[in-house]
Amino acid sequence: MKFGFWNLGFGIWNFLILCAAFLAGCTQQTTPPVQTANNTLDKMKIVDLTHDFSRETVYWVTAKEFELDTVFAGVTEQGFYYTANDITTAEHGGTHIDAPIHFAEGKLTVDQIPLESLMGAAIKIDVSEKALQDPDYLISVDDIDRWEQEENTPIPDGSIVLFYTGHSTYYPDKKKYLGTEQRGEEALDSLHFPGISPEAAQWLIDNRNIKAVGLDTPSLDYGQSKNFKTHVILLSENVPGFENLANLEQLPASGFQVIALPMKIKGGSGGPLRMIAIMNP
Amino acid sequence: MKFGFWNLGFGIWNFLILCAAFLAGCTQQTTPPVQTANNTLDKMKIVDLTHDFSRETVYWVTAKEFELDTVFAGVTEQGFYYTANDITTAEHGGTHIDAPIHFAEGKLTVDQIPLESLMGAAIKIDVSEKALQDPDYLISVDDIDRWEQEENTPIPDGSIVLFYTGHSTYYPDKKKYLGTEQRGEEALDSLHFPGISPEAAQWLIDNRNIKAVGLDTPSLDYGQSKNFKTHVILLSENVPGFENLANLEQLPASGFQVIALPMKIKGGSGGPLRMIAIMNP
Repeated sequence: MKFGFWNLGFGIWNFLILCAAFLAGCTQQTTPPVQTANNTLDKMKIVDLTHDFSRETVYWVTAKEFELDTVFAGVTEQGFYYTANDITTAEHGGTHIDAPIHFAEGKLTVDQIPLESLMGAAIKIDVSEKALQDPDYLISVDDIDRWEQEENTPIPDGSIVLFYTGHSTYYPDKKKYLGTEQRGEEALDSLHFPGISPEAAQWLIDNRNIKAVGLDTPSLDYGQSKNFKTHVILLSENVPGFENLANLEQLPASGFQVIALPMKIKGGSGGPLRMIAIMNP
Repeated sequence: MKFGFWNLGFGIWNFLILCAAFLAGCTQQTTPPVQTANNTLDKMKIVDLTHDFSRETVYWVTAKEFELDTVFAGVTEQGFYYTANDITTAEHGGTHIDAPIHFAEGKLTVDQIPLESLMGAAIKIDVSEKALQDPDYLISVDDIDRWEQEENTPIPDGSIVLFYTGHSTYYPDKKKYLGTEQRGEEALDSLHFPGISPEAAQWLIDNRNIKAVGLDTPSLDYGQSKNFKTHVILLSENVPGFENLANLEQLPASGFQVIALPMKIKGGSGGPLRMIAIMNP
């Protein structure tokens, strides 16, 4: 019996061309990512979202600042060069992570946060136009809504959400970035920088499924906050925060992934963070 | 004029099927990895190669050990829970990176190491069978050669090379892992743990193109080294080292990538490192 398919004027020669065309389309798809140029980590475009740690690093006005003590630097008796330092820092200074326990008793310490929560697809919500006009700017539900309208999608499940206020351009000028060069309790009322409104934080928890949040200011809550309600809302739900991020201006609104690897301090409430973004090919 | 292509018995209907088939093959290829299951970072199997930092963390016998001072832990006057700590550490303790400048004057400090050198395809050379029999074991050119024979390939260009000695199973038992529980200068002669022989380090520099090396002992050089020649050879060529790695037993000989993100200490000779491996799909 002659198979009906061929009766449609579809000869064996054409069928072979069809197969070849299909396979040509498939080839790269079936090759593991590591062997295709655009998918290897070492060939992707990387952006470092981290400020370095030095005497200039911005800390909370009541927190211990970064210190580096040189133990040795020079040529040893045995004839080789050697240098090493000791460091001291508050967990919460410079580019760092807030672990859930920082403001939520019994929640995850920094070493307990699953790595899966700290890496993966991310988005950037740019509020810099308004936040650069107003050092007390509160990121709103409207700001999130505008991103979703412009991107024509809800924030995808499992996203890491970054807010770009533009204030990283002031870093490490404490007067401009924190609102004051003073230190100590008496400086607390002079803190002025944007943060995430408690309403926006609660909206994200109630309506979207996010892994973590981050921004380019010293705190998830704005400078004038006294009750740190945004911290409490997010960290109580085991959603960690990334603070004092750098180079967010280099990121698009979507189409990138981030990797946030904090120092693994046992029982820590946070700690120094090295965070990078990887552009999707 | 009728176009000759159609004269080959290749009607417009068949041409459209051909196009559809090709596009079906292409579809996933043109979709960014973030939307395909196997290519997203957040869906890949991850291994944490990092020991945590605590009072138990293993340091060089002459180095300052890890300290955590609790600044506050409890409910504040305003009624919310809060906790934060200060930390002190030598750059070189626990899971950490040796920046090139550590043993090579004028070479890269930890903040200057390009991120591209710290991530990408990696291999594991397992020397545990011999190294667990001999605490003074020196990893040799033969060990590297054996990996290349077994994998049937030279170490690929741009690899990060990890050596698994099995000694991480002793961590943090200082007597077993370092060879001594003593501290200070007088303990230096009692250090016993495996390292990379200067000959193997030089062979890698001369014959292969590697980005970085790492192992699960306290030092690139073995415990009895007095001249730290392996450090000098590798770091002089701006090849950083990862020390006191964890969980290498969970890695295959090849087919994985690593991401090593150190604390970004300006001018640092090294520092706390969070390092992970990602299995190729």
